[in-house]
Amino acid sequence: MCFSPGLFPEILTTGDFLVVLTDILRATTSICTAFGNGVKEIIPVPDHESALTLKKKGYLVAAEQDGKKLQFADFGNSAFQFTPEAIAGRSLVYCTTNGTKALRSTQHIPLVAIGAFINITALTGWLNAQHRDTVILCSGWKNKFCLEDSLFAGALAGRLLEGGLYETICDSALAAIDLWNIARRDPVTYIRKAMHRKRLQKLGLDDVIPYTFTPDLTTAVPVFSNGVITDYGKNHQK
Amino acid sequence: MCFSPGLFPEILTTGDFLVVLTDILRATTSICTAFGNGVKEIIPVPDHESALTLKKKGYLVAAEQDGKKLQFADFGNSAFQFTPEAIAGRSLVYCTTNGTKALRSTQHIPLVAIGAFINITALTGWLNAQHRDTVILCSGWKNKFCLEDSLFAGALAGRLLEGGLYETICDSALAAIDLWNIARRDPVTYIRKAMHRKRLQKLGLDDVIPYTFTPDLTTAVPVFSNGVITDYGKNHQK
Repeated sequence: MCFSPGLFPEILTTGDFLVVLTDILRATTSICTAFGNGVKEIIPVPDHESALTLKKKGYLVAAEQDGKKLQFADFGNSAFQFTPEAIAGRSLVYCTTNGTKALRSTQHIPLVAIGAFINITALTGWLNAQHRDTVILCSGWKNKFCLEDSLFAGALAGRLLEGGLYETICDSALAAIDLWNIARRDPVTYIRKAMHRKRLQKLGLDDVIPYTFTPDLTTAVPVFSNGVITDYGKNHQK
Repeated sequence: MCFSPGLFPEILTTGDFLVVLTDILRATTSICTAFGNGVKEIIPVPDHESALTLKKKGYLVAAEQDGKKLQFADFGNSAFQFTPEAIAGRSLVYCTTNGTKALRSTQHIPLVAIGAFINITALTGWLNAQHRDTVILCSGWKNKFCLEDSLFAGALAGRLLEGGLYETICDSALAAIDLWNIARRDPVTYIRKAMHRKRLQKLGLDDVIPYTFTPDLTTAVPVFSNGVITDYGKNHQK
């Protein structure tokens, strides 16, 4: 487990593994929502210029900076905007302050799964089927540790250990599991103390929090590979 | 709070603050022991060559790599070696795999206090007297999060908050306080799961663990400033 993209380069040297990326508030929750609602593919881009260029070419674009939708974009970063009516069957270009940066840090990893509470059971099943060395990478906030991602990482690590196919000697994983065990009865109350939650509250963007901690709203397992995010299940049925 | 020197550069940009550095297993515990037993000053050096050069000039040298004492050195990195007989009144050159690296990451910070469970009450009092913006920096292990440093960081942060002079909105601090509240009744048992503890066990170096979690064995508050570590209290009495 890696609590921040800032620590990921150190882990990159340790061999071949797959990555689960999480950014609970809000990129990976939003991405899982979009696939749950039938988006065809998501193309993450690193900056606003790339997003604008693709917008002009006719793509749907979700783009935000520090929580606010950019003027030219169709959507910001809220899961609630990605309704079936808005996105089913479409390609979506995606640019976020924090989530896209974390994705970019995994550019040398062949397969990156997108994790959130809303797809945790599907993701756990998928990981058990893969059964490979795995790093859970928290997006954090501007390279800092953040509570909500770490709670998800602990919840997922706990499920993988319970399944019996995974083991860990990683202090981060052990700490995250302990934190999740404190928070699991009422994570929405627990997360009230989180810095990022307060930041979203200031921006009026914390309406999404109960949703982000609701397990299993979708069976989608989005995976990032060769520059595009697709739903692994649907992709492999084709 | 910063869980790893690898995340410290991001924090460095945020303004003027003092740093508390901790490396419970074992550098900062050993440094506090040395000052408790009357060492005059400790000169941290970044590499073995510098340590050897100063050894040839007649300095006492503590130097280890991956837990093992270097052949030319007088001491390794175990607190038990720094007896009053061995070090009282002397200058000690110090070179460790992990702790010195963490110290180096603070080279632009004018005042760095050295923290461990064995000086936690004295350190808390000193910090309350300083009453400045403070970052608790965990040395971690090879730029990774580690449990024992995070537990100390949580214990110290908890005491500072209880004292009423400090507040925090830092997710790392809140998480570390929660972890410490799980571990505090029996930290030696809690830490059995830690990766670094297992590493020390393999090397036969985990004898020091109960000692490292014993609070208040010394009232020394070592501070690193201008390249040298001295005991703040004694230094300011002169």
